[in-house]
Amino acid sequence: MASWGSVLITGCSRGIGLQLVKQLSESSSRPADIIATARNPAGSAALLELSRTRPGVHVITLDVCSEQSISSALEEVQSIVGNQGLNCLINNAAVGSSRSLQSVTRETMMKTFEVNTVAPLFVTKAFLPLLQTAAARSAVMGVHRAAVINISSILGSISNCGDSTTFRNYAYGTSKAALNMVSRCLAADLGPVGILCVSLHPGWVKTDMGGAHADLTVEESVSGILSTLSSFTEQDHGGFKDYRGQTLPW
Amino acid sequence: MASWGSVLITGCSRGIGLQLVKQLSESSSRPADIIATARNPAGSAALLELSRTRPGVHVITLDVCSEQSISSALEEVQSIVGNQGLNCLINNAAVGSSRSLQSVTRETMMKTFEVNTVAPLFVTKAFLPLLQTAAARSAVMGVHRAAVINISSILGSISNCGDSTTFRNYAYGTSKAALNMVSRCLAADLGPVGILCVSLHPGWVKTDMGGAHADLTVEESVSGILSTLSSFTEQDHGGFKDYRGQTLPW
Ligand SMILES: NC(=O)c1ccc[n+]([C@@H]2O[C@H](COP(=O)([O-])OP(=O)(O)OC[C@H]3O[C@@H](n4cnc5c(N)ncnc54)[C@H](OP(=O)(O)O)[C@@H]3O)[C@@H](O)[C@H]2O)c1
Ligand SMILES: NC(=O)c1ccc[n+]([C@@H]2O[C@H](COP(=O)([O-])OP(=O)(O)OC[C@H]3O[C@@H](n4cnc5c(N)ncnc54)[C@H](OP(=O)(O)O)[C@@H]3O)[C@@H](O)[C@H]2O)c1
Repeated sequence: MASWGSVLITGCSRGIGLQLVKQLSESSSRPADIIATARNPAGSAALLELSRTRPGVHVITLDVCSEQSISSALEEVQSIVGNQGLNCLINNAAVGSSRSLQSVTRETMMKTFEVNTVAPLFVTKAFLPLLQTAAARSAVMGVHRAAVINISSILGSISNCGDSTTFRNYAYGTSKAALNMVSRCLAADLGPVGILCVSLHPGWVKTDMGGAHADLTVEESVSGILSTLSSFTEQDHGGFKDYRGQTLPW
Repeated sequence: MASWGSVLITGCSRGIGLQLVKQLSESSSRPADIIATARNPAGSAALLELSRTRPGVHVITLDVCSEQSISSALEEVQSIVGNQGLNCLINNAAVGSSRSLQSVTRETMMKTFEVNTVAPLFVTKAFLPLLQTAAARSAVMGVHRAAVINISSILGSISNCGDSTTFRNYAYGTSKAALNMVSRCLAADLGPVGILCVSLHPGWVKTDMGGAHADLTVEESVSGILSTLSSFTEQDHGGFKDYRGQTLPW
């Protein structure tokens, strides 16, 4: 496995984001710079602990819904990665809420779309110059060159929705289907400059969002995600994959 | 073709919505009540003209983004359809804007999602009791019994996005992909009570939205839509169809 220059992850205060930072920093092929962002790093003792004890972990404030927060973060990241650029952006931050037809509100629909769909697009737009810098320094498509990984969900699979086993969630499901469309549009726009774009489902994971009855521990999910990420090639560009690398239906 | 009791259409001031009212009211199997809604009916001379000259055409004010407007409209519709209920709701109103990665803004993303995705869901929720009343009066699934038709777009097809022939539109495309998810969730929730739910692509049509270079005249599109609608059975429930009845990929 090639070693990575830099990875930026959103939503690292807890859950999958936090675990990605932990396991990346333990990995034998760990990136030189692991940029762990959170909207309120001071509120996450676990994240602060990682930044104190693991070399290369940089903790930066980033509220994905605030353009001001994004520009401050961009400046900090620029000074970390310099002319190497940013190799991999993982849009992980999201909100989840279980909303049935009866209980869903306009406000929940709008807020969920803002955080889960719009924010990843505008975080990507902001960091695009750094991703382009990294893409220009190499030739083989993959997360070690330049990539945007949008953490999506099987609940965003339109064709899958309505299966008896699938929980219908108007707000969350539409936001992740829309995020998949963002991934596809980005893939079409950024493929030509060598930036890989993929939607990735982490599995059903025991986090605050996934709940205690989920299938996977956060360690299991993140181990799968990391080995899947590093296997991505041009073939996976524009795809919808799960943590084991399986293709999911749109 | 069975005759319809009532059809309600949103966004009838112009374009496809206006033409649906026109051709429905001319049809040999025209619905007894054609409820043509618009956010500002007084601004559409063509719509007012139809309501004066065609029997059974009721013009009602309905801004799909306003809960207050929806409840006023609901009261009026209730008094028109009485205990027959509403047979078919066509969520047609939408906004379109061409937005590239460079030009797209958070505001355009949010506004487009509000009108094109959230509004159809909440219009449907509001009219659900009337649709349920109609569904309970018959047994064979279809638009003559009870149906929600969401006017979607091939630009909302996630798998299709990125084809060289397809225009990428971040705001509009994500809103229609998300609308397709709404259709699927509604299909799962409303199928059991006998309400057909389908996402329908009208083709590329010469309207203010489609532009002068579009493939189809509004007459051609609406002729196709109307014959396709009336052919829908249980088999089409939860599907994504075009104006000719062809299945489209999610
Ligand atoms: N867990 C599952 O089963 C599952 C399944 C499918 C997909 N996913 C996806 O996996 C990703 C991670 O989920 P998770 O299970 O780890 O969820 P989680 O435990 O609820 O964590 C969500 C993270 O997102 C952050 N966040 C929310 N809004 C933010 C904002 N405006 N700016 C910055 N950060 C923000 C939260 O920060 P705060 O601590 O500040 O709130 C938190 O760090 C999400 O995209 C989720 O949709 C999860
Ligand atoms: N034309 C195409 O090629 C094409 C292709 C694929 C899909 N579609 C879909 O077909 C449907 C009709 O499109 P069109 O081509 O007829 O577009 P159009 O000519 O631009 O008409 C849009 C209609 O939606 C109404 N509308 C917008 N916001 C509204 C609101 N808040 N409340 C109530 N009405 C509102 C407009 O009313 P005002 O006059 O008050 O603005 C107008 O009547 C849309 O869902 C569109 O996305 C069109």
